[in-house]
Amino acid sequence: MSEKAVNGGAPRCGKVLTLDTMNQNVRRVEYAVRGPMVQRAVEIAEELKTGVKKPFTEVIKANIGDAHAMGQKPITFLRQVLALCAYPALLDNDEFPEDAKKRARCILDGCGGQSIGAYSTSQGIECIRKDVARFIERRDGGVPCHHDDIYLSTGASDAIVTMLKLLVCGEGRERTGIMISIPQYPLYSAALAELGAVEIDYYLDEDKCWSMDVKELRRALHAAREHCRPRALCIINPGNPTGQVQSRECIEDVIRFVKEEKLLLMADEVYQDNVYADGCEFHSFKKVLFEMGPEFSSVVELVSFHSTSKCYMGECGFRGGYMEVVNLDPEVKAQLSKLVSVRLCAPVSGQALMAVVVNPPQPGEPSYATFTKERAAVLANLAEKAKLTEEMFNNVPGFRCNPVQGAMYTFPRITIPQKAIDQAKAEGQAPDQLYCMKLLETTGICLVPGSGFGQREGTYHFRMTILPPTEKLKYVLEKIKEFNRQFLQDYS
Amino acid sequence: MSEKAVNGGAPRCGKVLTLDTMNQNVRRVEYAVRGPMVQRAVEIAEELKTGVKKPFTEVIKANIGDAHAMGQKPITFLRQVLALCAYPALLDNDEFPEDAKKRARCILDGCGGQSIGAYSTSQGIECIRKDVARFIERRDGGVPCHHDDIYLSTGASDAIVTMLKLLVCGEGRERTGIMISIPQYPLYSAALAELGAVEIDYYLDEDKCWSMDVKELRRALHAAREHCRPRALCIINPGNPTGQVQSRECIEDVIRFVKEEKLLLMADEVYQDNVYADGCEFHSFKKVLFEMGPEFSSVVELVSFHSTSKCYMGECGFRGGYMEVVNLDPEVKAQLSKLVSVRLCAPVSGQALMAVVVNPPQPGEPSYATFTKERAAVLANLAEKAKLTEEMFNNVPGFRCNPVQGAMYTFPRITIPQKAIDQAKAEGQAPDQLYCMKLLETTGICLVPGSGFGQREGTYHFRMTILPPTEKLKYVLEKIKEFNRQFLQDYS
Repeated sequence: MSEKAVNGGAPRCGKVLTLDTMNQNVRRVEYAVRGPMVQRAVEIAEELKTGVKKPFTEVIKANIGDAHAMGQKPITFLRQVLALCAYPALLDNDEFPEDAKKRARCILDGCGGQSIGAYSTSQGIECIRKDVARFIERRDGGVPCHHDDIYLSTGASDAIVTMLKLLVCGEGRERTGIMISIPQYPLYSAALAELGAVEIDYYLDEDKCWSMDVKELRRALHAAREHCRPRALCIINPGNPTGQVQSRECIEDVIRFVKEEKLLLMADEVYQDNVYADGCEFHSFKKVLFEMGPEFSSVVELVSFHSTSKCYMGECGFRGGYMEVVNLDPEVKAQLSKLVSVRLCAPVSGQALMAVVVNPPQPGEPSYATFTKERAAVLANLAEKAKLTEEMFNNVPGFRCNPVQGAMYTFPRITIPQKAIDQAKAEGQAPDQLYCMKLLETTGICLVPGSGFGQREGTYHFRMTILPPTEKLKYVLEKIKEFNRQFLQDYS
Repeated sequence: MSEKAVNGGAPRCGKVLTLDTMNQNVRRVEYAVRGPMVQRAVEIAEELKTGVKKPFTEVIKANIGDAHAMGQKPITFLRQVLALCAYPALLDNDEFPEDAKKRARCILDGCGGQSIGAYSTSQGIECIRKDVARFIERRDGGVPCHHDDIYLSTGASDAIVTMLKLLVCGEGRERTGIMISIPQYPLYSAALAELGAVEIDYYLDEDKCWSMDVKELRRALHAAREHCRPRALCIINPGNPTGQVQSRECIEDVIRFVKEEKLLLMADEVYQDNVYADGCEFHSFKKVLFEMGPEFSSVVELVSFHSTSKCYMGECGFRGGYMEVVNLDPEVKAQLSKLVSVRLCAPVSGQALMAVVVNPPQPGEPSYATFTKERAAVLANLAEKAKLTEEMFNNVPGFRCNPVQGAMYTFPRITIPQKAIDQAKAEGQAPDQLYCMKLLETTGICLVPGSGFGQREGTYHFRMTILPPTEKLKYVLEKIKEFNRQFLQDYS
């Protein structure tokens, strides 16, 4: 069969759907993590394959937090349970441990016809939601959680967009505004653009390790009230792309702020296991909210998000996730349940994975030792690489790098000479995009320019994941240092 | 830990997000397949569990096309490949056939780090899209298909909503209108409500076995042009909920119509293997389009959808699917690629499942005989049940049932006495909802009222899946007949 492209044979003019006639909100969407830089990286990888000579032999995609793609091995226990669920004949196989079989039987009992090929209820399999609720209670020192407040989702992204969909309405000055941090994870700006919401930017304080400052929140909010109706505040903690872990005090301040200002709080906590720095600890917004007493815990509308894609699992491909809704108006919750039902259900294999994540092997079970060792090794290795990255980058002339307290990324501030800024502007691109593109062409290393996440005017950054294996990460850091020296020299 | 619900403790008045402040488009969404009828069915099942006496012992959910939940066994080969992908240590296990291992290795080679836990490219794993393209070419007698026109998706629903999102824009009389059949699958009306698009209803001809009629299409289109801008025509073939298989002539007529009227064509072909009636055959819109010659095939913008959830697979839980876009403006395609990248990728296990569906065991391979036998058994059984259902329902006084030519549902027309209609109206519900609710309470059988799909004013229907095992299906058909007699008597 020929591989001739079927598209493109028709004259442009006659199309129903063109750039001009399509949804203009979609046209305004930007998503830098998979933007032009990544497209070029894919092209270069193809060129290498076909034998084109380059000053490097492979493309290193440090643009995305994709642990397995970077060589991290799946956790054995998780995959054993998934294999058992997919092919229950294996339940008779002696090579699978009993605790894995127990988890698989439990998941299959929750499935229609004992098959993960059946649709689940739209909110997610009930026994899994119950396990999620127990997991949250343990994590939060006993703060109660009801499985009816849990919605299993297609990764966290799906749940975040669903909540934004519920929130966004109105026109003109009544249009919904949503507060997001700058720098931010571009899912947020992309979803807001698509929904035609007003994006309200608040800046994280780079000089204070990317912490949040309520004064800045207030400034952004009050300015926004002049032209839209702010309704929710989104926070990512641990931070993406910035790697900070917010302090308990800061979280309390934020909760007081949203209560006072009548905002719904969306807490993106997908990196909750990824905390590395001494003295840092993950505090869930839910726990802090409830410890602040009923005047807060009975009032503040909080939605928090989790995922199987990050932490020690790194199982991005399964698209597992959940959200917990707290203090949501019961009528709105009914609307939410209706809305998720239109898409039938989240992928059941992702739900099954989440079931294991929230119900891992316990002491005394056969897989406990291996599981615990594998998990600890992943997290220890990440902690080591976080430290390494910070140290190396702070030795690069012109770089200033906050500690990678958590998550999976570094977001160093870089110096771009005026000559390079001028050239970028003349070419109609952001200066840090020019920097990253030149890095890609010179070294094969793919990063995301800071402009894709937002940054203070006149500052430049990039996001790099710390996920490559230690030796490769060292190579990457060295190459960036070398490139940076040459770049500064070329544009001096 | 207590299971006390965390929600509901706060006073209503203070909420940020209420029925009045939420997105009103979402509020307008309706999705009958999982609506109040199903909620009541779930309640009744709970009541039965707790020992409440009912005139029946189980709830039979005939409301949804969920094959595995109805007892259909997964196809062995599909699940073997999935288990191998999930837990590659099994590649050394002698009990797995070589062809399953070959497929798994091929899929894993297409994954970052050889893991289905890595994100794929947003459009889907390239080697799988290539296999999808070859599958389509074989299906369509050699009409070329390029993998760059394939987008793997989270079930077909996801792809359908994505296309609608691209299409819908404008305000007032410029607002996008989308033509959908009545009766329709309520994903369409729900998505259009959510997007705030204008739904343009065209009626299928019940008297001609739910066929399409271009005169009716034209009537609906021209009436709609008075108040909106129609941009696309959606067709489900084989039909859901109506079970018809459109003839080749009809498909040609539709293609001429969309070309003439400058509409984009969306063909929902997820039931393409589910054709049962003698003389009926599945014709893909793509194949017919290309056989009509370049004056059509180089012009008509066509998007067609497929899924792993239906056909002989019935793997709904994996949320696998794809769409093929034909003649899309390259700039629009770039926008589409950007839009799907925001959600990162479709579940990789669903992609893997699709890989096997489009590349099943071949003659000479070890799994060929078993696979072929299992697939044939599922389809033969469905064909038998389609026939059985039609025959039984046409023997029920007051029912008129078109043949179930394809798909997985029957949509009989039922007679509702005036007294029942009056009562329903007084209670503010649709007469066929009253009928189905009474059936549920009396027999435990859960159907979806025709009003959830749309029907001609003054006619009443319900949708029932033909998926229950033959003996249970017979029981269901008998029970409905019995209930119907009593219902007609009670309301005479």
